[in-house]
Amino acid sequence: MSIDRIKPDLIPFLETYLPNTEEVAQTNKPFVTLTYAQSIDARISLGPGIRTTISDIETKVMTHYLRYHHDGILIGSGTVLADDPCLNCKWHKDDTDTNFAANSPTPIILDTHQKWKFKDSKMYHLFKKTEGKSPIVVVHNKPIVEEQDVKYLVIEDGNDKKIDWKILLQKLYEKYNIKSIMVEGGAYVINDLLLRPDIVDSLIVTIGSTYLGSGGVQVSPRSATSLTDVDWWKGKKDSIMAARLSSEQI
Amino acid sequence: MSIDRIKPDLIPFLETYLPNTEEVAQTNKPFVTLTYAQSIDARISLGPGIRTTISDIETKVMTHYLRYHHDGILIGSGTVLADDPCLNCKWHKDDTDTNFAANSPTPIILDTHQKWKFKDSKMYHLFKKTEGKSPIVVVHNKPIVEEQDVKYLVIEDGNDKKIDWKILLQKLYEKYNIKSIMVEGGAYVINDLLLRPDIVDSLIVTIGSTYLGSGGVQVSPRSATSLTDVDWWKGKKDSIMAARLSSEQI
Ligand SMILES: NC(=O)c1ccc[n+]([C@@H]2O[C@H](COP(=O)([O-])OP(=O)(O)OC[C@H]3O[C@@H](n4cnc5c(N)ncnc54)[C@H](OP(=O)(O)O)[C@@H]3O)[C@@H](O)[C@H]2O)c1
Ligand SMILES: NC(=O)c1ccc[n+]([C@@H]2O[C@H](COP(=O)([O-])OP(=O)(O)OC[C@H]3O[C@@H](n4cnc5c(N)ncnc54)[C@H](OP(=O)(O)O)[C@@H]3O)[C@@H](O)[C@H]2O)c1
Repeated sequence: MSIDRIKPDLIPFLETYLPNTEEVAQTNKPFVTLTYAQSIDARISLGPGIRTTISDIETKVMTHYLRYHHDGILIGSGTVLADDPCLNCKWHKDDTDTNFAANSPTPIILDTHQKWKFKDSKMYHLFKKTEGKSPIVVVHNKPIVEEQDVKYLVIEDGNDKKIDWKILLQKLYEKYNIKSIMVEGGAYVINDLLLRPDIVDSLIVTIGSTYLGSGGVQVSPRSATSLTDVDWWKGKKDSIMAARLSSEQI
Repeated sequence: MSIDRIKPDLIPFLETYLPNTEEVAQTNKPFVTLTYAQSIDARISLGPGIRTTISDIETKVMTHYLRYHHDGILIGSGTVLADDPCLNCKWHKDDTDTNFAANSPTPIILDTHQKWKFKDSKMYHLFKKTEGKSPIVVVHNKPIVEEQDVKYLVIEDGNDKKIDWKILLQKLYEKYNIKSIMVEGGAYVINDLLLRPDIVDSLIVTIGSTYLGSGGVQVSPRSATSLTDVDWWKGKKDSIMAARLSSEQI
């Protein structure tokens, strides 16, 4: 339950991209960080449902450091079903800071048709060991059978409609006091949000030095989009780009 | 006809990836550098035939610096038809080093069905102004009408077959004394060569901080492939990865 130290120069590099509480207080909407790891050829996995290691340990620690700084961590149903992810935070400041459940963000799962089960997932076991929080599952309709320890956020705006990000964020803020959200995937969610400078406050992309090939799950938004406030961090194997989405389209 | 200075730290960064004359003497095959500029989402243009600026001036100078260090510069027919590229070298060491034609690599155009015309292309005008060299065009059959100043390299291995890289490199070496080749694109050529560690000696990828979107021309090889000897350079807007292709597949 411990994790390697974060590279010291990553801390100042990330500083201006972390959730900005002043901004949250002004806008009354959660701060949203979009973050993922990709290969050079913009693939985030070798194929649908194939869990793939892309980033090196040096950047993997960063993910946990980012989780530490967010109230919520959001993923789509595709990812939760394919990867059975942990989503908890293993990074801690020092030896006194070992309340891993408190340090972990609340998992927020966009699973509108409720295909996923919390029970017996990795998230469930971490929650039981008090090493992670229990999730909020975003659904279209109140479920007939509710799982224990799961909070259901019902967004009733039509069964087959996409959930409106603004409404979702507003509800997460008002109902659960979630002031910052880290969006970790998958491709569907990321491609959608890359075109939403009105929603996304920071973008952090890890690029691993590998090619996953054209059969992989790719991140590429429907249309071109440009970035501002760009900064790069270089590691031994990976590189990280931090930026903001620009509202000017290409 | 002049170009900005190269960022000083790019010179040591590139050093070990430049053509290695000792290796060439040992192997009797040209040293091959595969290089291109892509967006974060691995697109090298906004769409087929749309010339797209991806890299910033800081990395654009590097391309000319690389051209300075190679005897030949190879592209496919798709690129020559879409972009009408210059392919010459504008970088020079100092004020006495102004023989731009001598400093430029020889353009090598894979245009097996001879769709491209040299006459009136940008390459042609640069050649006439002695700012670039005239090209070698790789064809399946000896052309009936030959263009002036063009050298035709006929590779007779069947009209619709792909040209064998090994045979092509050997002929370029033996017939034209080309000891180093920089391959600049496009997607078809790059995707093919990314799976050829037996052919490619160095890989240099510039990553611009933009998304060109899913309609763009993408670089992603048919299968996954891993890299070795990875190094990253970070600029203000772009990042560069230098590496070698690994013969170990993922
Ligand atoms: N390398 C990385 O950083 C990384 C990170 C995460 C995931 N991944 C990879 O990504 C792949 C999964 O990606 P994916 O594209 O298949 O799935 P995904 O983006 O995780 O999930 C997509 C699903 O989430 C729900 N959803 C998303 N946005 C919604 C909205 N606005 N309204 C309503 N529902 C919404 C929809 O499902 P419902 O209709 O069922 O609700 C949608 O089909 C896996 O291979 C995984 O390994 C990689
Ligand atoms: N950002 C960058 O760094 C960059 C650089 C270059 C190009 N680009 C972009 O790339 C796009 C063009 O890419 P593309 O994939 O369409 O074309 P391409 O790779 O330039 O050319 C492909 C063509 O070259 C010939 N060829 C290649 N390899 C061959 C082989 N082994 N044997 C025989 N023929 C071979 C074939 O044409 P024939 O059968 O006609 O001979 C093939 O169709 C353009 O949009 C351009 O702007 C971007």
